[in-house]
Amino acid sequence: MKTLNRTANFYDVIRERRSVRLYDPSVKITKEEIKELLGEAILAPSGTNLNPWRFMVFTEPAIKEKLLPMASGQQQVVDASAVIVVLGDMNAYTVENADKINQRAVDAGYMPEEIKDRINNSVQDYYGSVSEQIKKEWQMLDGGLVAMQLMLAAKARGYDTVPMLGYNIEEFRKEFNVPEKLVNILMIAVGKAREPGFPSVRLGVDEVTYWNGNL
Amino acid sequence: MKTLNRTANFYDVIRERRSVRLYDPSVKITKEEIKELLGEAILAPSGTNLNPWRFMVFTEPAIKEKLLPMASGQQQVVDASAVIVVLGDMNAYTVENADKINQRAVDAGYMPEEIKDRINNSVQDYYGSVSEQIKKEWQMLDGGLVAMQLMLAAKARGYDTVPMLGYNIEEFRKEFNVPEKLVNILMIAVGKAREPGFPSVRLGVDEVTYWNGNL
Repeated sequence: MKTLNRTANFYDVIRERRSVRLYDPSVKITKEEIKELLGEAILAPSGTNLNPWRFMVFTEPAIKEKLLPMASGQQQVVDASAVIVVLGDMNAYTVENADKINQRAVDAGYMPEEIKDRINNSVQDYYGSVSEQIKKEWQMLDGGLVAMQLMLAAKARGYDTVPMLGYNIEEFRKEFNVPEKLVNILMIAVGKAREPGFPSVRLGVDEVTYWNGNL
Repeated sequence: MKTLNRTANFYDVIRERRSVRLYDPSVKITKEEIKELLGEAILAPSGTNLNPWRFMVFTEPAIKEKLLPMASGQQQVVDASAVIVVLGDMNAYTVENADKINQRAVDAGYMPEEIKDRINNSVQDYYGSVSEQIKKEWQMLDGGLVAMQLMLAAKARGYDTVPMLGYNIEEFRKEFNVPEKLVNILMIAVGKAREPGFPSVRLGVDEVTYWNGNL
């Protein structure tokens, strides 16, 4: 697969990925490369493989300028090469969507027809019986999975990122007429750092880990 | 840093990671290696770097057996070398926690004292004013980020994983006396595949991507 015929040390990628807020505005990323990057990101898993993720990609300077007031003037939304807003499609949690995806798996010879039918039934039972609120939580989880893989895949290509929750979701949805079925998950700026991100600390593993049920 | 002095091709890792449900029960992973793995996972970012993630790790056979009925008899919770339940600490979204983490950044010379104070104030304003429901959604997002990095880090070490939502959270919480402040995010089985995972399909990038505000 062309997009994956590359190399990058996984451990360098996870160690060198840092949140970067100052970008070189002269750097452009081609649409083709952004598509490759998204293709790598969506190798991430999602609940019942329903692929709920959707991506609004902003690369045109005039459109990125519209994001600036929504993001409290955080300059990275303009200076970064691309701003990718990760959304989740609430209609992904339906039998129609499950059938669409899994029919392709059947056609590719990855899945027997009867497994597809069984998954359809379980999607009906499982997703059909939970509240919109729980589905929203699952969207956030699935969105987090794909967003992490996206940020790592960007770093593997030599790009920096910053995940952003600090923007006005209501204004964003109004400006771009985002339909109700799409929920906002995370905004990610992608580009080349003008200045390196700050190192940061973490709570230690022993502070956040509990063994064999001992809390 | 010892734990990162290793190599693995990032592109192999993201391409070869698949959800695996059949594990070799004879494979043990040492506590030391699980701690290294978690140390790699928590290099992931989190909202305001509040590190809300917590991990309940199950490796003892007798304790893993307790998970079996909660997980509708899915054998991977017993056969996998470890089951890691990712949780989120709702108390992470407090000034106390922000100050604890950022004081360490100040002490390490990564952060000026006045930035720490400014973050404390913004945590007070930002997290102090939102509902528990929104915080839960942020937990799911932050949990998704760290869970993805955990699954990739496991693959980089040659282990397989499967993310699981299909277990009874109420029974789990009762059995292990999980305090209210910890919310369940995702269960992940980690081990060596007895049989390879199935290949799977994804919606195409063009089906899930919108450019420059055109939905």
